[in-house]
Amino acid sequence: MSSTFGKAFRLTTWGESHGPEIGGVIDGCPANLKIDVDAIQHQLSRRRPGQSKLTTPRDEKDQVIFVSGLQDNVTTGTPLAFRILNTNAKPSDYSNAASIYRPSHADFTYEKKYGIRSSSGGGRASARETAVRVAAGSIAEQLLARHGVQIVAWVEKVHTIRAVAAEFPTRNAVDANAVRCPSVEVAEEMSRAILEAKKIGDSLGGVIAAAVTGAPAGWGEPVFDKLEADLAKAMMSLPAVKGFEVGSGFSSTDLKGSEHNDPFAVKDGATVTTSNFSGGIQGGISNGMPITMRVAFKPTATIMQKQSSVDEQGNEVTLQPKGRHDPCVVPRAVPIVEAMTALVLADHYLRQLRHRNRPAGETP
Amino acid sequence: MSSTFGKAFRLTTWGESHGPEIGGVIDGCPANLKIDVDAIQHQLSRRRPGQSKLTTPRDEKDQVIFVSGLQDNVTTGTPLAFRILNTNAKPSDYSNAASIYRPSHADFTYEKKYGIRSSSGGGRASARETAVRVAAGSIAEQLLARHGVQIVAWVEKVHTIRAVAAEFPTRNAVDANAVRCPSVEVAEEMSRAILEAKKIGDSLGGVIAAAVTGAPAGWGEPVFDKLEADLAKAMMSLPAVKGFEVGSGFSSTDLKGSEHNDPFAVKDGATVTTSNFSGGIQGGISNGMPITMRVAFKPTATIMQKQSSVDEQGNEVTLQPKGRHDPCVVPRAVPIVEAMTALVLADHYLRQLRHRNRPAGETP
Amino acid sequence: MSSTFGKAFRLTTWGESHGPEIGGVIDGCPANLKIDVDAIQHQLSRRRPGQSKLTTPRDEKDQVIFVSGLQDNVTTGTPLAFRILNTNAKPSDYSNAASIYRPSHADFTYEKKYGIRSSSGGGRASARETAVRVAAGSIAEQLLARHGVQIVAWVEKVHTIRAVAAEFPTRNAVDANAVRCPSVEVAEEMSRAILEAKKIGDSLGGVIAAAVTGAPAGWGEPVFDKLEADLAKAMMSLPAVKGFEVGSGFSSTDLKGSEHNDPFAVKDGATVTTSNFSGGIQGGISNGMPITMRVAFKPTATIMQKQSSVDEQGNEVTLQPKGRHDPCVVPRAVPIVEAMTALVLADHYLRQLRHRNRPAGETP
Amino acid sequence: MSSTFGKAFRLTTWGESHGPEIGGVIDGCPANLKIDVDAIQHQLSRRRPGQSKLTTPRDEKDQVIFVSGLQDNVTTGTPLAFRILNTNAKPSDYSNAASIYRPSHADFTYEKKYGIRSSSGGGRASARETAVRVAAGSIAEQLLARHGVQIVAWVEKVHTIRAVAAEFPTRNAVDANAVRCPSVEVAEEMSRAILEAKKIGDSLGGVIAAAVTGAPAGWGEPVFDKLEADLAKAMMSLPAVKGFEVGSGFSSTDLKGSEHNDPFAVKDGATVTTSNFSGGIQGGISNGMPITMRVAFKPTATIMQKQSSVDEQGNEVTLQPKGRHDPCVVPRAVPIVEAMTALVLADHYLRQLRHRNRPAGETP
Repeated sequence: MSSTFGKAFRLTTWGESHGPEIGGVIDGCPANLKIDVDAIQHQLSRRRPGQSKLTTPRDEKDQVIFVSGLQDNVTTGTPLAFRILNTNAKPSDYSNAASIYRPSHADFTYEKKYGIRSSSGGGRASARETAVRVAAGSIAEQLLARHGVQIVAWVEKVHTIRAVAAEFPTRNAVDANAVRCPSVEVAEEMSRAILEAKKIGDSLGGVIAAAVTGAPAGWGEPVFDKLEADLAKAMMSLPAVKGFEVGSGFSSTDLKGSEHNDPFAVKDGATVTTSNFSGGIQGGISNGMPITMRVAFKPTATIMQKQSSVDEQGNEVTLQPKGRHDPCVVPRAVPIVEAMTALVLADHYLRQLRHRNRPAGETP
Repeated sequence: MSSTFGKAFRLTTWGESHGPEIGGVIDGCPANLKIDVDAIQHQLSRRRPGQSKLTTPRDEKDQVIFVSGLQDNVTTGTPLAFRILNTNAKPSDYSNAASIYRPSHADFTYEKKYGIRSSSGGGRASARETAVRVAAGSIAEQLLARHGVQIVAWVEKVHTIRAVAAEFPTRNAVDANAVRCPSVEVAEEMSRAILEAKKIGDSLGGVIAAAVTGAPAGWGEPVFDKLEADLAKAMMSLPAVKGFEVGSGFSSTDLKGSEHNDPFAVKDGATVTTSNFSGGIQGGISNGMPITMRVAFKPTATIMQKQSSVDEQGNEVTLQPKGRHDPCVVPRAVPIVEAMTALVLADHYLRQLRHRNRPAGETP
Repeated sequence: MSSTFGKAFRLTTWGESHGPEIGGVIDGCPANLKIDVDAIQHQLSRRRPGQSKLTTPRDEKDQVIFVSGLQDNVTTGTPLAFRILNTNAKPSDYSNAASIYRPSHADFTYEKKYGIRSSSGGGRASARETAVRVAAGSIAEQLLARHGVQIVAWVEKVHTIRAVAAEFPTRNAVDANAVRCPSVEVAEEMSRAILEAKKIGDSLGGVIAAAVTGAPAGWGEPVFDKLEADLAKAMMSLPAVKGFEVGSGFSSTDLKGSEHNDPFAVKDGATVTTSNFSGGIQGGISNGMPITMRVAFKPTATIMQKQSSVDEQGNEVTLQPKGRHDPCVVPRAVPIVEAMTALVLADHYLRQLRHRNRPAGETP
Repeated sequence: MSSTFGKAFRLTTWGESHGPEIGGVIDGCPANLKIDVDAIQHQLSRRRPGQSKLTTPRDEKDQVIFVSGLQDNVTTGTPLAFRILNTNAKPSDYSNAASIYRPSHADFTYEKKYGIRSSSGGGRASARETAVRVAAGSIAEQLLARHGVQIVAWVEKVHTIRAVAAEFPTRNAVDANAVRCPSVEVAEEMSRAILEAKKIGDSLGGVIAAAVTGAPAGWGEPVFDKLEADLAKAMMSLPAVKGFEVGSGFSSTDLKGSEHNDPFAVKDGATVTTSNFSGGIQGGISNGMPITMRVAFKPTATIMQKQSSVDEQGNEVTLQPKGRHDPCVVPRAVPIVEAMTALVLADHYLRQLRHRNRPAGETP
């Protein structure tokens, strides 16, 4: 059941990095939703490896193929299943390292958990599976867009270089450079740092910020499925993520309650807050203000340097670098963060449909 | 379904701060587990309000009453249900504020979600419900202890005051002072800051760190129910939590891959890592090293100062302070973090029981 | 998780026949529903033992006590928890038989499953737990009634005596006699048979029929959660149930397709079927016609006659009759069948709320 | 979520009768299980249309293609996904009837539920989707076989012709004739009846019996997930099923408790029952005796005769027969009943792995 995400808008995924395909099936997408397949492909192309010199040269077309649940690109209410072929798998790249546990990868833990693991590449642990999340997230996003909800994510920090945005950027502004940092000058600095790391076979991490605008008050369910709890789970289930913050996050602890509380006020007839340390969520439920969060990605575990490790037979060995690597996954992770945000919000949009008691006689 | 947590070790809770009781039912606790009720009460007393001058004077005995699933304190495999009475509810404390949305509380969002909310206190949104989590978490902890798993949490930061621990403290060391910070000198400084805030009717937040030792490699399920994802959800579902980190967390982004990767080595015949930036989890699965995390709690929303707000009729008003308040919830939140950790680990302990194919003929 | 029923309208139950109480918590009941507690008590009184000379003399008041989720009898959207005290438990009645497995009871299987079982009475396996289902089912029924859905069940067969109803009876007609068979003459014959069985310490089974009117077309979810599949699970989860039919049931096999198909026609502007062998469900989804079903209850396992059995030590022994017994549970099971029907339909009512794509901009 | 079945051994399916493929993904199958793909194909060939003159001429190869979770035919613990191509779809067969609701099909109810339905054939409602169940069920069966559990189903009744088996047949005996009724003479009579119905464009239903041997005591979970409740749901979720019985079923009502109770006795050192009216299940938990059940299938709704119906515009019309039809699905449904039985038992096998408290220190 751990390959299923969501309760009302449910995504189940499969596939390994070096098998023939990856895929997913969405159960619970409302019927009669017109799907824009180009929009899905666009998000996939933003996640795709090989899109710039900052990323791994592994090149996947990532064409989404629908096999169920669509008729003339309109959802029928039945399971929406789709496949994405693995066209560029090169198992041989990984063969000599197959018996050595790569540091900070999942080789060792998969072996311990299952007593067996895929003989090449990351198998199911590879970030390859996130392509399915991006495709499904794009569908969720299209459902949300009908109701005025917009999601944007961007790179806020690479290694020790941080950009501070005065306001939420547009996706176009985010995509104006390969780093996906809307601050042009900082982006160039980040780009240089990534290329420098690449040159020496090293890797960098970073922080992605995200914002949701247009979500109404009332989404999220106490006490365990609070909106921030589901967002946290969504992000922390991504490969390489080590931290999550909503609203003021860890920096909230530097403030006093009198500084941190968000006063209510009336604006254009609506109840709003005049600050947004809450990040748009109070008591686990959206309050109508922008939902804001941050996600920390560690530096990629795959590096092109010698490392100390242990092999399957329990011998201490030196791992020789081989294969392809992504010096910094953060730019490619932007659409993934957007996708996970969309999956959580679409789920809570649907869940909220049944919380208010309907007028007598109104039946679905 | 949002009041249920866990898939194999499942806790469902109910109750509001000013109703007659709160309670919980655990479905999935293995049979024949001897329950130490005193140990549950001990954890409840650590969470209890009124335990020191640092906390709210609201005083609840928090006696756990089992009504199902136990025979002579041994689990029978059937649902383990328990109640905790609300003995000190004072609805009148809240009456004059009933129609005003308290800033950074859940009054407004509950109203928007359900079209109705409890007329006094926080109702279901009150941190009162965490007592049920603590009781259930203690049972989970007892199940885990049989298998050598130990959990400890402690206060690492209050407001801007941070303690740095060289190693994991014992619970005794944590409880040596009312702040629950094992560093004695820093604890005193934190205590002064909390009392100072209390004096001016203000509040402080802080960071709790936690560590799990003795968990074997193999717990946690890719790709969505990664161990850190479930821990993140557990913590972010707590009232007032704004951030979560596993292992190196946000600080991982300051390192390069060559610095951050955890090399494998052999120690006493076992495969270990010589650093633990991973926080004991790789690819969502425990690797046998200590599991480490951090949780950020915002400053309590209830303060004894005037605040700007809006009432139910949409008028901008000033909220007058009244009632009781907790100047810093972090010391009391220590057993709550331990409880949520235990619930997640007990769940994954049980889930892992069925992942390896059993020998032919071995049936349960 | 096996003590939870439903996906959107979710009931979780606890309690054993000889513990202090039984109880339940409903998660997912919409807010702002006015609860008629008398209506709940009325259904509980119909299920209650000791209500007539046809039933066990064990007498339970079965007063429902709400402890969460209600304010002035209106639902708040938070978990609706309630307790029912066990006021007439007599563990001593069962003591001498404690070590002997009662034939066709669950003593042996609980022992094998859990390695432990309650030392007296049926524990969790007792039909006592169905009181919780009846209370929860009454709430579900009140939610459904707002939308014009009516449920009625009645006794169709006791032992070999069968009544044939020309049309669906009212609940008043059902309750006109203690057997709850709307055919007065057949009811008297059934009553005599039950009293005769009681006299010789034997027991009888029977069949309960049920009908749902007013449910709109569109409820039920393919392919696994078909409406009849969830109804079947609901009924087969009741103690003593051995069979379930929807619509024409087993007798459908005696007909040819040309005889069994339900032709569509137009009546008062609506599409209806001119026969109803389908029992109101096609492809797992309601079609707007009455939903009809039948449930078979075996003769009660508790009899007042000597029986061959085995004790916990593996010795063949003779079980001596002792305690109280219910010569025929079928009359008391009528409100239980109604309750399980209501739980299934309320669940699918809520689930259907999210299947159609809402107009752009319409958010909950 | 309605396209997912099971809690520990979870199957999620997708696909429509006239799309490019159908498929499924199993989450929770233990690692290191060697899969016999031929055995899967064998069960698929038993379900396959076109296998004899008794069935529809629609001919599907039904080759299962694994795309995830297998390495050298051994399970890796990750999701086991597979596809089955639709090679013989002929949408044009259905075109003229597209706007008319076929009697006792799901056209009308899908339209009412989703506001849209597939324009040809049964779409998701077609029995085509059961091929996925058969493939998944075969995998479940292979897991169960390792632990000595055997499943067999056979045709007991076609139209009014009933066979009475003295003992459980082997699969070979079942497959000795095209009807899959182990009683040779009765099978011939059934065969003639089916061919006679086919000739006049009519259809017949029937009853399938099934038995499970070798299942240990202890499987099944009270109170809602009783083994018979999950089996009932499994069978009632199949297209065309109208009734389900476990053990004595509806005929239990003809007996008194003293006749129907199953006495315990000791045989070869084990506790057994000397009769088996319980059908191997007591209190929802297996008792080690054979698990027996019966499933009623209505006569196929597709017939080659004129029928009264209504079209999408609400006009009463006559439906002209066209296309292919299956005069009696019962013989082909035998492996489907076996598959659903296997899915339920594999689920409960895995669930039972965590019910007993493990020895201190024993961790998975």
